Amino acid sequence: MARPAPLSGFPEWLPEGRIVEQHVLDTFRRTFELWGFASVETRAAEPLDELLRKGEIDKEVYLLRRLHAEGDDDTGRQLGLHFDLTVPFARYVLENAGKLHFPFRRYQIQKVWRGERPQEGRYREFRQADVDVVGNGELPFHHDVEVAQVMAEAVAGLPLPQLRLQLNNRKLIEGFYRGLGAPDVPAVMRAVDKIDKLAPDAVRELLVTEAKLDDAQASRCLALAGISAPDASFVDRVLALGVRDDLLDEGLHELVQVVEGVAALRGERFDVTADLRIARGLDYYTGTVYETRMAGFEHLGSVCSGGRYDSLASDGSTTYPGVGISFGVTRVLAPLLARGALRATRSVPSAVLVAVTAEEGRPASAAVAARLRARGVPAEVAPSAAKFGRQIRHADRRGIPFVWFVQEGGGHEVKDIRSGEQVAADPQTWTPPEEDLHPRVVAG
Amino acid sequence: MARPAPLSGFPEWLPEGRIVEQHVLDTFRRTFELWGFASVETRAAEPLDELLRKGEIDKEVYLLRRLHAEGDDDTGRQLGLHFDLTVPFARYVLENAGKLHFPFRRYQIQKVWRGERPQEGRYREFRQADVDVVGNGELPFHHDVEVAQVMAEAVAGLPLPQLRLQLNNRKLIEGFYRGLGAPDVPAVMRAVDKIDKLAPDAVRELLVTEAKLDDAQASRCLALAGISAPDASFVDRVLALGVRDDLLDEGLHELVQVVEGVAALRGERFDVTADLRIARGLDYYTGTVYETRMAGFEHLGSVCSGGRYDSLASDGSTTYPGVGISFGVTRVLAPLLARGALRATRSVPSAVLVAVTAEEGRPASAAVAARLRARGVPAEVAPSAAKFGRQIRHADRRGIPFVWFVQEGGGHEVKDIRSGEQVAADPQTWTPPEEDLHPRVVAG
Repeated sequence: MARPAPLSGFPEWLPEGRIVEQHVLDTFRRTFELWGFASVETRAAEPLDELLRKGEIDKEVYLLRRLHAEGDDDTGRQLGLHFDLTVPFARYVLENAGKLHFPFRRYQIQKVWRGERPQEGRYREFRQADVDVVGNGELPFHHDVEVAQVMAEAVAGLPLPQLRLQLNNRKLIEGFYRGLGAPDVPAVMRAVDKIDKLAPDAVRELLVTEAKLDDAQASRCLALAGISAPDASFVDRVLALGVRDDLLDEGLHELVQVVEGVAALRGERFDVTADLRIARGLDYYTGTVYETRMAGFEHLGSVCSGGRYDSLASDGSTTYPGVGISFGVTRVLAPLLARGALRATRSVPSAVLVAVTAEEGRPASAAVAARLRARGVPAEVAPSAAKFGRQIRHADRRGIPFVWFVQEGGGHEVKDIRSGEQVAADPQTWTPPEEDLHPRVVAG
Repeated sequence: MARPAPLSGFPEWLPEGRIVEQHVLDTFRRTFELWGFASVETRAAEPLDELLRKGEIDKEVYLLRRLHAEGDDDTGRQLGLHFDLTVPFARYVLENAGKLHFPFRRYQIQKVWRGERPQEGRYREFRQADVDVVGNGELPFHHDVEVAQVMAEAVAGLPLPQLRLQLNNRKLIEGFYRGLGAPDVPAVMRAVDKIDKLAPDAVRELLVTEAKLDDAQASRCLALAGISAPDASFVDRVLALGVRDDLLDEGLHELVQVVEGVAALRGERFDVTADLRIARGLDYYTGTVYETRMAGFEHLGSVCSGGRYDSLASDGSTTYPGVGISFGVTRVLAPLLARGALRATRSVPSAVLVAVTAEEGRPASAAVAARLRARGVPAEVAPSAAKFGRQIRHADRRGIPFVWFVQEGGGHEVKDIRSGEQVAADPQTWTPPEEDLHPRVVAG
């Protein structure tokens, strides 16, 4: 067959890119587990009525059909691939509620599928890393701070461009609009939500014509959306707009706690602001909302988003509130890998290639590799007893830093092929320097 | 909504089962990487013509269709979910041949989908762990030994019932049939392949009527299929059947090397036999073939299979031979988890629950958890400042072994809630015993 072409929207990595991706996924997993979040993995397919039950009919769901469908062993339900990890997690919580302990702390790192038109930052198959806490009936607010902290700690450990967490609170903005006397609060939110796409005057016109605000009210809504601050100083600026409302006060109080809760993690790789224009569109959030921009890659939109929802799921008698945040792994990695902005120090796990002098000597070389592996040193044996120069080139092309030679008299030497230095070594005790043991992931 | 029901054939685990699964996956990954195999992950979807290009029209492929398909941004190719990891890997090798280094050593741990009628051991969504070596034009035989070794080493490290690797070689059986004077070697293989399903007399009849053997030839074919041995002793038994053929000799020589290459790994959890009835059906194998039975679960069939194929892929000018083996992760774990034969020592990663005396004291408790995590100890903070008895029950229900108390004077104590022992502790230095640091996976 001819050389196959890639499928647009279905990114794949070469082995070096995969090492980068695994490092990112390992960092998320390690951080989430250190914070006591349990791993959940849900099936890729859900009944279509579950996928669409929140009215998500605009989503480009992939439907499944069996090639030889005959119908006699099927449930008769149309299945589709999940387009996020929240809908399947809500279903999982309801299905297993009697067997889970609440508040239930879970992370979930999986691929999702959307049949959207592919472009940079938007794929048909992509991976997300989600972390959520879900309560049974109630869920304390402090988990809103916690999920921001765990995500901030994870990304601060990754060699990415700086990520800026942008925080807001739906109680704050809804309370403000209510306190302002807005007759139709959702209409105000819909208008302000267009602030990134329209000119300020166009938003003002929507606020007046659609949301029925007067000009002074519209001005104060635009002023609120214009407030951003790295710390609690946003509170005085909001109060200076002269609107008073209990829900607004609650939102202000909550937002201060989240901003201050992650402030200590601020650094080269992580920043945080309260940004009062962030509303997360028309999603179901009811309190804290999170978005995240990556420095130099603002055109990707938010790469890590989430919020508090009073009802993640409900079975009619019990409601399960939740708070969570989702990192777009593919959305972040695909552009960085394409630009060479992230790379691995080699394309294979092996730290050592054990050379083979002649095929009869392969068992001796294999024994060396086994001894190295027994002590955690990744090692492979040369595929053929070629000339040593060729075996060294074999290692060099893969980035394997060390080549091991079993000598005729039974002695051993190991060569650092970068420096050319070759020294006597004992397979029972020799280890490479820590930085050469495994491939490392570095900014390109 | 009402409580959702599981989807037949799409298994999911509770958090404890997921910990078991992750442990198994981690063991495969660690072992494969120690042997220098690089991770590859391919997209879930392939063009249908690629999936079916080897004539696999009997496979129950899941086809994809977009809910709002309009056609203007599509390639016009029908996509289906991959049903194994070999077909997508062959496509990946061809697509990226110019950027890969051969022999290319890769592992791939992913879910696959088949729309088959679900039953124990057969699922519609399941996970496989594959390890393969692929050459460019040629691939030395010693890799047949190596992939058996790496898989044996991985499974020998898992708390599973004993796995018995059953080895054979297609050259051996084809050479035998040829040397016997069989007029239609593939017809002999088709007949012998039914040996597990039919009575010996029925197979003998097929050998006579379909494969056109005489009665003496049929007897020797059945005698060959009846040979199994834990070591190279099968060679003399085969030669005693009086058939001579160069290909047979080559197959015998190769099979001895694979059997002896994994013999050292034999133990409580791993066994190996040469089993000359194993043919891997009508697959494309051309040399070594691997199957694996799990003790007490023989009804599952082979749980880990593979072999050598002279042409994994070909672009017309270059042929890529390969050898590989695939472990059925879901096929093995689902029955073991259902029977409680494998379990985790707790259902959450946390080793420590830091109690909260009063909500005002939450920051002090969070600071303790942060100090523990900084030294790699998974820790979470109690969700509410309930009575200590309730906080301890909260830990107990999840299997968290330690509860940490921040005392009013600033002192710290930690309680092992299993023994009730409570001691003073320093959050900067205290660590749990090694066996309590992370959940462990044990036979049930």
